[in-house]
Amino acid sequence: MSGGILEGLRVVEVSAFIAAPLGGMTLAQLGAEVIRIDPISGNIDYRRWPLAPSGSSIYWASLNRGKRSVALALNRPEGQEIARALIARPDGAGEREGGILLTNLPAAGWMSHAALSRHRADLIMLRLTGNHDGSGAMDYTVNCASGFPVATGRDAAPVNHVLPAWDIAAGLYLSTGLLAAERARRKDGQGREVTLALSDVMLASVGNLGYLADVQVNGTVRPPMGNDLYGALGRDFTTRDGRSVMIVAISNRQWRAIGQATGLAEKFAMIGPMMEVDLDTEGGRFDARGAIFALLEHWCAARSLAEIAAAFEGSGVLWGPYQDFGQLLTEDPRCSQTNPMFGRIDQPGIGNILAPAGPLGFSGMERLPPRPAPVLGQDTDQVLAEVLGLSAAAIGKLHDAGTVAGPMPFDIPQAR
Amino acid sequence: MSGGILEGLRVVEVSAFIAAPLGGMTLAQLGAEVIRIDPISGNIDYRRWPLAPSGSSIYWASLNRGKRSVALALNRPEGQEIARALIARPDGAGEREGGILLTNLPAAGWMSHAALSRHRADLIMLRLTGNHDGSGAMDYTVNCASGFPVATGRDAAPVNHVLPAWDIAAGLYLSTGLLAAERARRKDGQGREVTLALSDVMLASVGNLGYLADVQVNGTVRPPMGNDLYGALGRDFTTRDGRSVMIVAISNRQWRAIGQATGLAEKFAMIGPMMEVDLDTEGGRFDARGAIFALLEHWCAARSLAEIAAAFEGSGVLWGPYQDFGQLLTEDPRCSQTNPMFGRIDQPGIGNILAPAGPLGFSGMERLPPRPAPVLGQDTDQVLAEVLGLSAAAIGKLHDAGTVAGPMPFDIPQAR
Repeated sequence: MSGGILEGLRVVEVSAFIAAPLGGMTLAQLGAEVIRIDPISGNIDYRRWPLAPSGSSIYWASLNRGKRSVALALNRPEGQEIARALIARPDGAGEREGGILLTNLPAAGWMSHAALSRHRADLIMLRLTGNHDGSGAMDYTVNCASGFPVATGRDAAPVNHVLPAWDIAAGLYLSTGLLAAERARRKDGQGREVTLALSDVMLASVGNLGYLADVQVNGTVRPPMGNDLYGALGRDFTTRDGRSVMIVAISNRQWRAIGQATGLAEKFAMIGPMMEVDLDTEGGRFDARGAIFALLEHWCAARSLAEIAAAFEGSGVLWGPYQDFGQLLTEDPRCSQTNPMFGRIDQPGIGNILAPAGPLGFSGMERLPPRPAPVLGQDTDQVLAEVLGLSAAAIGKLHDAGTVAGPMPFDIPQAR
Repeated sequence: MSGGILEGLRVVEVSAFIAAPLGGMTLAQLGAEVIRIDPISGNIDYRRWPLAPSGSSIYWASLNRGKRSVALALNRPEGQEIARALIARPDGAGEREGGILLTNLPAAGWMSHAALSRHRADLIMLRLTGNHDGSGAMDYTVNCASGFPVATGRDAAPVNHVLPAWDIAAGLYLSTGLLAAERARRKDGQGREVTLALSDVMLASVGNLGYLADVQVNGTVRPPMGNDLYGALGRDFTTRDGRSVMIVAISNRQWRAIGQATGLAEKFAMIGPMMEVDLDTEGGRFDARGAIFALLEHWCAARSLAEIAAAFEGSGVLWGPYQDFGQLLTEDPRCSQTNPMFGRIDQPGIGNILAPAGPLGFSGMERLPPRPAPVLGQDTDQVLAEVLGLSAAAIGKLHDAGTVAGPMPFDIPQAR
């Protein structure tokens, strides 16, 4: 299995934006063959910001690494017919296991489960919608409803997190659900439509984290408390050289490590009697956090980031520096090729860059290195030949008729 | 397959906190039998805040729904021996497929992959660590390094998001990785150690979203811009009655819908020439967002949330109200039993509450309803009898010796 843990699996993706592409990319990073089908001029996400100087979308290239790209006239019956064949064609002998479609686009008409499963009864189709009733929603409009923006920051004004966390979770629910359905199909031969709503991902997560139960049984709505951990000890602190660090203690061992590494243990010991709490409990440390933070503020303000790093080295203190995206790339050794997850890729239109592979490692097999995203339509001809068995002449006719397209001239990689 | 899509799969979990428990719960919600093994007095997360009035942890109960709980003296060889038997016992005929361990605890000694796989060669072991070198990290210390806190909010001060997004993503990578390894085992009979580092989940995500490439090719570090969408149109607006709404346009269709629903289309049309941008492009709308926002601010400030909801109803505008966790529960119909994902459970120590099932739906099978979390040790006796075939007398002896424990008296559900 040199091709990755999912070698032999074939998934067709008709998608845009983050969640479904991330689900497909996750499978590609595990060795599945993922064929992304797009309209000839690209889907709505093909030119999304940020862009490279060449005009290529860094966004698209980052979310579609390791896939094959097929460009079809999806607005025409002939294009739809080719897509249908790629999705629902029965597997031949010794073939990859196919018959799997992953989409977050409206799955009506030819792309509905009913229509496609007429061509392949055991089709697995994963369909991401905005809401469970099929209505639209996206990460931003799901997030505002979640309760988190008004619990984030210091005051009542809502603060959106910049991370599209619901899209990421949805993408990984899709990869989980796809493998679960494929496992069941191998046992019972049945195809299935697998549905997931982005707002359900949010609602499930809010419930899984206890917020819904907290409201129901305690009637409490968690207020914003800046960067303070809730129910434990932790916050950000500013260093002498103007950097910030996060310091956390969940366990008693971590709490004692802070006292020892900072030399503040004796002063911390005065806080328990003073505040009448037991600092050997998480709740006690949370209740007395103001006094603990006051000592840590002074300690951090008197030291540079480098001095703090040296003091905490090997101490068992759970901490980390705040970094912007640039500092993450230049200062954090985990974000470099010393981390086996990273490699360099030649990304058409973007250049030679450091990029992550998938984060999962499997013993007994090399991790698949990061691979570049395709240029739109890059694999059209090869996929039509390989998967559908079309001749060069037949493929040429499809090009002439405008039914399929190869890479567009301005997308072909330029020397930099 | 009335038992869920993963019926027949058995996973043993030795875990704490969020990521690994969420990975296990995701599998349980799909029908896998998930046996969580804990020390007799519970693991480090068993009393985490928030608590119900009874003292039960809402946090723990929310992250461990649908699992079975076995309490063992894991600090003693006899307890470790039972855990080992539960994890690595060969499957019998017609049995569930087992031999799978999911853990985020230090997997040394008896719980190492080397030790366990001596008892079952095809063992699949998933191991979540903080960093890829095995050193410690948690959501908070991974998040501060990610670049997101300093890109969140309005100014340079870091703003942590409250959502433990990296833990959630890690949990779902674990469920994906587990199913991938189980698929491979069914093909080649090989067991595997599957490793995942929480900081790699963060690093991969930052890369997948294009931030690392943006720094490398453009040298730009995305600055905080409040709640403005980057590269598109969207922000929060305050209503006349003091609520907030998020309004977004990614596509031209959504952009035109805003103009139509608000009656501002003609005024919007003046902005293009005024700002010298093409408002029919995402980039143009982003560049001219200040002027667009000024009009929308006035429009929202003159209307109540209800009036805005009425104006946007059926209009194609992508929007949503901000809600706190209480409003989410009381005002959002998606967070109620009208949504098939939700049901009511009797959660010991907490009460009868609305709770989410898993968000994935599979055609041809009922979604498994939400199930309560176990009380610690609730299933000890039954699991020892069912899985290990121990007699009541043998189980009694283990209790007498303090090697195993059933539910603790104060945890047994009380009438409320």
